Amino acid sequence: MLRVGVVGYGYWGPNIVRNFNASEKANVVAVCDKNENALGRVRRNYPGIRTTSDINDIVRSPDIDIVTVITPVSTHYELAKAALENGKHVFVEKPFTSTTAEAEELIELAEKKGLKLMVDHTFLFTSVVKRIREIIEENVLGELYYYDSTRVNLGLFQRDVNVIWDLSPHDFSIMDYLIKERPLAIAAAGKAHINSKEDIAYIMVYFNNNIIAHFNVNWLSPVKLRTTLIGGEKKMLVWNDVDADEKLKVYDRGVEIKSKEGIYDLLVNYRSGDMWAPKVDQLEALRLETEYFVDCIEKDETPFNDGQAGLRVVRMLEACDRSLKNNGRMVYL
Amino acid sequence: MLRVGVVGYGYWGPNIVRNFNASEKANVVAVCDKNENALGRVRRNYPGIRTTSDINDIVRSPDIDIVTVITPVSTHYELAKAALENGKHVFVEKPFTSTTAEAEELIELAEKKGLKLMVDHTFLFTSVVKRIREIIEENVLGELYYYDSTRVNLGLFQRDVNVIWDLSPHDFSIMDYLIKERPLAIAAAGKAHINSKEDIAYIMVYFNNNIIAHFNVNWLSPVKLRTTLIGGEKKMLVWNDVDADEKLKVYDRGVEIKSKEGIYDLLVNYRSGDMWAPKVDQLEALRLETEYFVDCIEKDETPFNDGQAGLRVVRMLEACDRSLKNNGRMVYL
Amino acid sequence: MLRVGVVGYGYWGPNIVRNFNASEKANVVAVCDKNENALGRVRRNYPGIRTTSDINDIVRSPDIDIVTVITPVSTHYELAKAALENGKHVFVEKPFTSTTAEAEELIELAEKKGLKLMVDHTFLFTSVVKRIREIIEENVLGELYYYDSTRVNLGLFQRDVNVIWDLSPHDFSIMDYLIKERPLAIAAAGKAHINSKEDIAYIMVYFNNNIIAHFNVNWLSPVKLRTTLIGGEKKMLVWNDVDADEKLKVYDRGVEIKSKEGIYDLLVNYRSGDMWAPKVDQLEALRLETEYFVDCIEKDETPFNDGQAGLRVVRMLEACDRSLKNNGRMVYL
Amino acid sequence: MLRVGVVGYGYWGPNIVRNFNASEKANVVAVCDKNENALGRVRRNYPGIRTTSDINDIVRSPDIDIVTVITPVSTHYELAKAALENGKHVFVEKPFTSTTAEAEELIELAEKKGLKLMVDHTFLFTSVVKRIREIIEENVLGELYYYDSTRVNLGLFQRDVNVIWDLSPHDFSIMDYLIKERPLAIAAAGKAHINSKEDIAYIMVYFNNNIIAHFNVNWLSPVKLRTTLIGGEKKMLVWNDVDADEKLKVYDRGVEIKSKEGIYDLLVNYRSGDMWAPKVDQLEALRLETEYFVDCIEKDETPFNDGQAGLRVVRMLEACDRSLKNNGRMVYL
Repeated sequence: MLRVGVVGYGYWGPNIVRNFNASEKANVVAVCDKNENALGRVRRNYPGIRTTSDINDIVRSPDIDIVTVITPVSTHYELAKAALENGKHVFVEKPFTSTTAEAEELIELAEKKGLKLMVDHTFLFTSVVKRIREIIEENVLGELYYYDSTRVNLGLFQRDVNVIWDLSPHDFSIMDYLIKERPLAIAAAGKAHINSKEDIAYIMVYFNNNIIAHFNVNWLSPVKLRTTLIGGEKKMLVWNDVDADEKLKVYDRGVEIKSKEGIYDLLVNYRSGDMWAPKVDQLEALRLETEYFVDCIEKDETPFNDGQAGLRVVRMLEACDRSLKNNGRMVYL
Repeated sequence: MLRVGVVGYGYWGPNIVRNFNASEKANVVAVCDKNENALGRVRRNYPGIRTTSDINDIVRSPDIDIVTVITPVSTHYELAKAALENGKHVFVEKPFTSTTAEAEELIELAEKKGLKLMVDHTFLFTSVVKRIREIIEENVLGELYYYDSTRVNLGLFQRDVNVIWDLSPHDFSIMDYLIKERPLAIAAAGKAHINSKEDIAYIMVYFNNNIIAHFNVNWLSPVKLRTTLIGGEKKMLVWNDVDADEKLKVYDRGVEIKSKEGIYDLLVNYRSGDMWAPKVDQLEALRLETEYFVDCIEKDETPFNDGQAGLRVVRMLEACDRSLKNNGRMVYL
Repeated sequence: MLRVGVVGYGYWGPNIVRNFNASEKANVVAVCDKNENALGRVRRNYPGIRTTSDINDIVRSPDIDIVTVITPVSTHYELAKAALENGKHVFVEKPFTSTTAEAEELIELAEKKGLKLMVDHTFLFTSVVKRIREIIEENVLGELYYYDSTRVNLGLFQRDVNVIWDLSPHDFSIMDYLIKERPLAIAAAGKAHINSKEDIAYIMVYFNNNIIAHFNVNWLSPVKLRTTLIGGEKKMLVWNDVDADEKLKVYDRGVEIKSKEGIYDLLVNYRSGDMWAPKVDQLEALRLETEYFVDCIEKDETPFNDGQAGLRVVRMLEACDRSLKNNGRMVYL
Repeated sequence: MLRVGVVGYGYWGPNIVRNFNASEKANVVAVCDKNENALGRVRRNYPGIRTTSDINDIVRSPDIDIVTVITPVSTHYELAKAALENGKHVFVEKPFTSTTAEAEELIELAEKKGLKLMVDHTFLFTSVVKRIREIIEENVLGELYYYDSTRVNLGLFQRDVNVIWDLSPHDFSIMDYLIKERPLAIAAAGKAHINSKEDIAYIMVYFNNNIIAHFNVNWLSPVKLRTTLIGGEKKMLVWNDVDADEKLKVYDRGVEIKSKEGIYDLLVNYRSGDMWAPKVDQLEALRLETEYFVDCIEKDETPFNDGQAGLRVVRMLEACDRSLKNNGRMVYL
């Protein structure tokens, strides 16, 4: 039985506690938070869990195997480092760290210590993302043309990060999981209307081949949109995450060049065939993810959403910030 | 009675003929097209209309007052110039011309000759765009924050222009009509998958003030999306042009800063109030536009969608091409 | 070349003229209407078509082969009878007649005279209805369980008929086409709010087997709904006719009884699988229908939407009226 | 502090426990269920709550003030009666009882004993239903014309009741709450495909005045629909409960008679104005309902969803069964 210490019991922490507790191979033994009200909520709901406001009660506790860091990003590095140094496996909320340097240091430390390090890219454990990955791997779409994501809503303003650091880790980790090719360069443009942090941003991602990716993130949208279009040579798909019943639709639609003799002889053929909405389960992704982490530790396997996956996302976030400061200029990764 | 000569009877020409003919102050007397089949269609449907494949039968005809140029953009300049030189009022399909230089020359020529020049920005005559303009002018939205447009579908590939020149004239003319401030700079990124012309592109438009604008145009989308979000300090609106019944929705939603003492004391307040979908008429925009052109000629008034409006759009299109060639670098207008 | 005389040039008449004219085997030679404005519209759009307000100029004209009766239902019998007596093939707008007696008489007359009689059940010529029929005939749905239709909108009030006679002929003819079994009985309930004719009604249709059918028709709905659910033992489909792109969806969903030993041991298994939206063409149904009528005459074949099909619909309409007058009591057909 | 004993810990019971526990004026002290697994779940989640399989441990317990009956409907009467006889206030799951006779007896008993009796019509505590009631009471809709509800999905088959007894208590209680007039008669038709209980049914409800109501309930629908249209003389509303963001829409649409001189002079005027979607809170209805019950007990007030409200619903359900057995014949209430 792996014993879990949870650091941070704000919005996401309760889900972490509930899901590790649901495992038959793990249970949460302690929760740390600076906010006494948060700890009160822990005690009311889980009388058996120890609560503390001192991080050392977690990272140095001999009866804890896994430390989960569910705090603001600026504190991830320090907390994860302390946990690793004390021999704990670490599960870190996304985004992994505030800088690539921090991410690299944590990866190296975990490796040296032989500990598992996993970044909470929850979306990778949803049925819909797994189904899309299968579809791409089975080459249903053919060569990929574009990846176009819109993630907008009236957003929870974050005090210490802009909209990119808040929303794009989802998209960057999903794209990283779905598209094998590594991005070459990135460009971001945005605007801060409410405070000094951008609340709306647009991101272009360039690859070496035919793919182009684009991300629209916005905290000031009156409606919630969660739409990803992935276009390929053979088929195209639309993932609409706010549609309760038909999240994923695969379209047998496309364009084929028939002849290219001259500009005015170009014959383009449109295919407009059936649509197919594969069934997508409603299992809780975080439940699967926490179980997977426990399994990785037990079997001594490296999780696919490890520190390296977290680092790749942080590298893109960092590059976005550089591009934002340079009028949207392309930044090589 | 103003006599109209129509040059070009492809996809859009029949609508031009039908709508000028529906006016009580105008009628179409001649149609010119290089394609004999097109002329056959004219003769079958309108036995009274003269047909010709010689442009001079239109631009030099003494019984023609208005020449409408409904041909590929590369021919606009030459045809419009010939018509103006022969003393005809000119109605040009969008985009106005292939270059700003051409546009400026035509504007000057029309002015010198005292002739009316109008660019067919049909969307400006739709009830929904007029209603949005009223809403903005009545300051319902408050200070504008962003203008975000998505115009994607499985597109009709154009042989001689990329997706920006095909789709963005709509958006640029609408934005130009709705937002008083003039854009400062533009950046565009895209990719050509099928032939050498970009079939997918993303455009950022920068202003001097708080507004940011973004345009997503794509000929390779399996689904047709026509969505424009306009966010303001007080309210926000969503215009979904593929929704038959509720194209326009105004949301009483927004964000307010309550106090700003320190980063961690920032109090952001979310308003999430009613939504309101003003009724939007289904009148045919082109019918109103052609009538307006006739009226401008009769009353000797300058149309608001004149050569200058057309030029502003061409200037943005030209800047997009420059940006595309420079890795999406910002181009000043 | 079959020569067509059109009686009635109101809302639907122009479509009839345009579609018969589009045939290479037919053309409209004369239009009759009591309204001089309507005839003016004919002359403006079709200078070659004769216009008249005297029905005899159509039914007795020696140069007319087909008479199309596109007038209010109360006049169908008399007009169709006159046309048949004068040796014309007859195409009648739905509903066929005001009574089954009239329908039977016309069928008999046409048979005696060896003339074709077709009722304009346009929906049967849409791609979507044909696709649904294929799906049912291929037994994709398995044994049929129910047919549930909603056809509501803010309706064009008819002066002389209630909402059932206005809207249900569509549904009754579609059900008659899709479901091989003949209905056994019908019951209808409704209410008249605006004048003496029911503006809202609900209709139950009973069969000898497991199927049950229900129709919701309403002229007082603020929104336009056109939804038909067809449930079967194996699969179920939803036809949403107001969805421009995905009208037809087939769901691999259902219920299976696993064991039935006792009430409390009943094991019901739910299947919730993929959804599939077959491509549906956008061809104009009326174009196909008019061509089909011309073909039936040329090849001397009986159209499937003949007088008998029209009669079956009228029989149901008549039964609805009887049920309405008897507190919704079931009326045997 | 009111002490609650919960009888039944199946699907709904856990919500009852959680919500009474969330009150500052009540807490759950004991749960009774025949299923030992259910009791195990109680003990795991609420170590402080007593569990029992003997109903007498609840109804006769001196430390219990409120008994909640969250069991199959066939057991409601017996359990509620035992609780009332032992001086407990009673909260009964919907539908209240299996027969009107049972309901009447329980009402009388509660009255005699001076105890509160409340039926769990949860929907009456949703923000959307409360908002609709306000809209109707403020006469926004004008005289009511119709109430049309569709509640269909791939349903949880109930062993002991048909689809009407399962789904219609929601609709009947909502209609009872929204429409002041009492229904006059009811008619129901349906079909049982899977076992001997109807899995699909259609219900007409008649009133003395202009209103007509209709309910479509179905356990065999591939899609989940929860749509209620309420049409009035002045405005109409659509409540779509599966729309997360815009559940309620009020349409300024309608029909007006302008003149009625003769049938063919009838001038009907259509109004097609704005639509307005009032903001609807997302508060948990059951939380409000349980608190309300506690308040009614403390203040000795009669809840509006009392036994009488429950009885009115049961009376309609009973009448539906009678109509089902008589070919859908109208049954007076």
